[in-house]
Amino acid sequence: WTKNAKAKSFCINMLSSVYALILTMVAFVIEISPTWRSEEMWLPYSIFCVLMYTVAVAYFTYLYLFVLYPNVINTCIYFLFRKGYIMNPCKWILDEPVYNGEGAGTMYLRVGTLFFGSMGSVLWGTEILLCFFESQRHGIYVVKYALAVIFTYMQMHFIFSNSKISLKRTNIIAKFGLMHSVAVNLWTWLSICLIKSSIKHAKKEIKYAVEEAKNKTRTETYTTWSYDFTMDDFGPHDKQLRAIIKLGSNSNLLLTCLVEFSLIAAVICFIIWKNDDPNPGESPKKEKKRSFRFDCSGTSTGIFLGIIIHIISTVVIGMHGILMKSQKSMAADLLVGFTDLLMFLVTLLACFLAFFQMRKLQYRIHSHGEVIDDILLIVGLAGECVYSCAGMDLYLNGRLTKQRVSWITIPSFVLRITEVLIQTVFILFASRMRCYNYATRESHPGKQVITFLLVCNINLFIYHTFETMESNFGFPVNLPDNYSVMLSIASPIVVFYRFHSSACLAEIWKHTYSRKHHEHLIHEPVDLAEKNVIVDKL
Amino acid sequence: WTKNAKAKSFCINMLSSVYALILTMVAFVIEISPTWRSEEMWLPYSIFCVLMYTVAVAYFTYLYLFVLYPNVINTCIYFLFRKGYIMNPCKWILDEPVYNGEGAGTMYLRVGTLFFGSMGSVLWGTEILLCFFESQRHGIYVVKYALAVIFTYMQMHFIFSNSKISLKRTNIIAKFGLMHSVAVNLWTWLSICLIKSSIKHAKKEIKYAVEEAKNKTRTETYTTWSYDFTMDDFGPHDKQLRAIIKLGSNSNLLLTCLVEFSLIAAVICFIIWKNDDPNPGESPKKEKKRSFRFDCSGTSTGIFLGIIIHIISTVVIGMHGILMKSQKSMAADLLVGFTDLLMFLVTLLACFLAFFQMRKLQYRIHSHGEVIDDILLIVGLAGECVYSCAGMDLYLNGRLTKQRVSWITIPSFVLRITEVLIQTVFILFASRMRCYNYATRESHPGKQVITFLLVCNINLFIYHTFETMESNFGFPVNLPDNYSVMLSIASPIVVFYRFHSSACLAEIWKHTYSRKHHEHLIHEPVDLAEKNVIVDKL
Repeated sequence: WTKNAKAKSFCINMLSSVYALILTMVAFVIEISPTWRSEEMWLPYSIFCVLMYTVAVAYFTYLYLFVLYPNVINTCIYFLFRKGYIMNPCKWILDEPVYNGEGAGTMYLRVGTLFFGSMGSVLWGTEILLCFFESQRHGIYVVKYALAVIFTYMQMHFIFSNSKISLKRTNIIAKFGLMHSVAVNLWTWLSICLIKSSIKHAKKEIKYAVEEAKNKTRTETYTTWSYDFTMDDFGPHDKQLRAIIKLGSNSNLLLTCLVEFSLIAAVICFIIWKNDDPNPGESPKKEKKRSFRFDCSGTSTGIFLGIIIHIISTVVIGMHGILMKSQKSMAADLLVGFTDLLMFLVTLLACFLAFFQMRKLQYRIHSHGEVIDDILLIVGLAGECVYSCAGMDLYLNGRLTKQRVSWITIPSFVLRITEVLIQTVFILFASRMRCYNYATRESHPGKQVITFLLVCNINLFIYHTFETMESNFGFPVNLPDNYSVMLSIASPIVVFYRFHSSACLAEIWKHTYSRKHHEHLIHEPVDLAEKNVIVDKL
Repeated sequence: WTKNAKAKSFCINMLSSVYALILTMVAFVIEISPTWRSEEMWLPYSIFCVLMYTVAVAYFTYLYLFVLYPNVINTCIYFLFRKGYIMNPCKWILDEPVYNGEGAGTMYLRVGTLFFGSMGSVLWGTEILLCFFESQRHGIYVVKYALAVIFTYMQMHFIFSNSKISLKRTNIIAKFGLMHSVAVNLWTWLSICLIKSSIKHAKKEIKYAVEEAKNKTRTETYTTWSYDFTMDDFGPHDKQLRAIIKLGSNSNLLLTCLVEFSLIAAVICFIIWKNDDPNPGESPKKEKKRSFRFDCSGTSTGIFLGIIIHIISTVVIGMHGILMKSQKSMAADLLVGFTDLLMFLVTLLACFLAFFQMRKLQYRIHSHGEVIDDILLIVGLAGECVYSCAGMDLYLNGRLTKQRVSWITIPSFVLRITEVLIQTVFILFASRMRCYNYATRESHPGKQVITFLLVCNINLFIYHTFETMESNFGFPVNLPDNYSVMLSIASPIVVFYRFHSSACLAEIWKHTYSRKHHEHLIHEPVDLAEKNVIVDKL
């Protein structure tokens, strides 16, 4: 079988996936195990991190030099040829890249990746500067974080510009490299989730200590405690990120962005790995899509209704902060609960309305989006389910142990999970709809509602981001330990679900009502007059 | 002359402008004078505010019902006609609106207006809720802020959707209403600037009191002072916005947004007022532009270089916050100073490079943009000049009085003002360039640099926003009073300059390299093959 090309490529695929699996598992164990978290093991742990990042960066460098931009190497080869060092340049010349594959196709997702990736780089960059800040850290930390910045930045550029590359040869290095990046991204994701939950844990402990101290003596101890936490003289080798302690609640935003970036990046690398073009030389070279076109008719009502929701929720975020400062956390929770209820209700109604209005459209088997959209959507849905179920579970637990819990939790979570389910079904369904007949093409049935849903989802994305930064509504303050870990894994995914469903809705908004499919379908020559109109419109 | 239509319209214009002038002056005097700011005058002052807003809201309601969406009224008239109450319906029927005028044409400016306007509404909305929060306020405040929300929201919708309306008849109500909105916007602008400067003043006084107290006794007094400031039991009738005290430094962001919104709105209302179509019935009815097209070729290098700058500046913002917390304000200032220097230097070099690369393009007398772009750009330029000059002036003052000032101030401000001047000249010049010949159309000379400048300006916009929230670099902490007022007027304009130059750059980016003008210019029938290609591309 060693001479069968298909068998070879299957073997490479299998080996590389096993490699990724083992690497991910090893990395997970290293993250979680108490042995590696101990203070003495800082050097092996850092070396492990540096190795992970180095291999990934080396792989991307290879990819850029040899696959994506082969001109540099080709010029060198020609130079060497002219000098007489190489006899047969044709053997060495690298081919031009082909952009046929599937990748992060949608503009929205790519812009989101840019945003998340640059925020992630900011986190690592701050960390580098903080290494020199107080009690100088060992040089290996600087190297580690610098590699992390480079890795994030390269991956960002790769996803934004070149994710549609299709790897031509049965390329061993490419396959293993992609799987390595998947592993690194998953490892980053887990380690950040662990860091987040450990921070929450530390904060809560301090809060309780403070409250106990208050009950006993006066506020004397308060200052020392909070001082210890915020002004901690870092041990030179503790694993904690210094930026998190220094930046306070803003760092939570950065962490959420980084989690989302690594999630997207892992899925995209996986998809590129999976997509092996059987005969890449023969398929026609598609041009990179360069220009974008938006048809904004029939949207302004949707936008302005959405903005009202946005204003309300932003006001609520502000009031929540104010109420928390004035020690009225009960009222703050109630306020957030009612707003949640209102927003989920409105979005749910909008989903039903959209279903109703879009009943006249035609069904097509292929969706607009790509595989990645569906995968990410399902991941988000799973996160939402876990989140809501945990919330209801904790409410029941609170009732049993006779704690003070507000009744608004249950309807809010039930409505939330209903809304998420209906919306996911709607997105999966609507992305397979097309607008084929002339009558519906002019009236755009459902476009206003989709615009409204889009704005609402962006708004919920911002709202959930703030929610995870401050406090999670519906969850008691003193969480059990295992719930706390679960929550800090689920809550970035909840944020991500909103981001991604807005991305999918944007795709639906753009493609369902476009004329492109229509003209491709009917295949009858459009008469010259209409063509002229179109040309003039250009 | 009473029968001459032109004389009539001139008379109306003159009267309405005089009305706006008087109203603005009266409002300014009321804002500034100590009589009206006293505690006893709260009721007349509030009534004045309510009246201002009521008239503006009434005007916009009129505009929407009678001019923009006349269908509602027309349906009522037909209904009355069928019932027999009206004899001659044709006399009463309102015409359809015509969208020929100049207004906020560019997409970028409109989206910006949406953002600023919704942030402004958030401020007023929070204020409404806070009226019920502690020590219930008089009902008139609720009315006042509710009207402010409605006014902001209506104006936002008007600017976004309908700013290209041309008012048909020599419409007395429309003219006076527009001038009234101009006055209201200017008044909002001034009052917010005054509020900002008074807050800064109050903060500084507290800081100094705290520092003095620290020198004398221990931190005992600190808590009481800051408590007084943050937890102030509001007098029921003080003019201060409660939201500002409650929201802390976030409110500064909201205030900046509101200032920018009222500036844009005032200019747009003024332009609509000025633009009187002489014979509106005859000019062909332009369609509302509905679809947008972006040609994104040749941009990714620019974007990614810009993102590096963005990451650096965001890291610096984070580090600035950390250093300020650790009481190292000197180091924080130095860091910000060097970053300013770096960013202005890079942007300046990019401007020169763009000038150099665009030398091959063709000049055309008409700019892409509209009058409003140039006006707003010049306003921003004036703000930057005032800001930089004040900065240098205060540095010299500091040298004379032997205070500790860092030398980095002077090169930073000199570079800043050079950069701003060069960039303004470049924008005004480049918006009159076109890409006419085929060779340049393919190579897009200068597009990468323009993209880079665009990203840099957005980045500086964010950076300056944070700068005005926290502290102004280069300015001593204990400002003289008159400088403080000047600064709080100039610093939102500085932010606005960056926003608006990015808007202009986006226009240049979009239009300079588009094919539209080209095809309109040569006016030769494109052959069928090319047409087919274009149709297929659609």
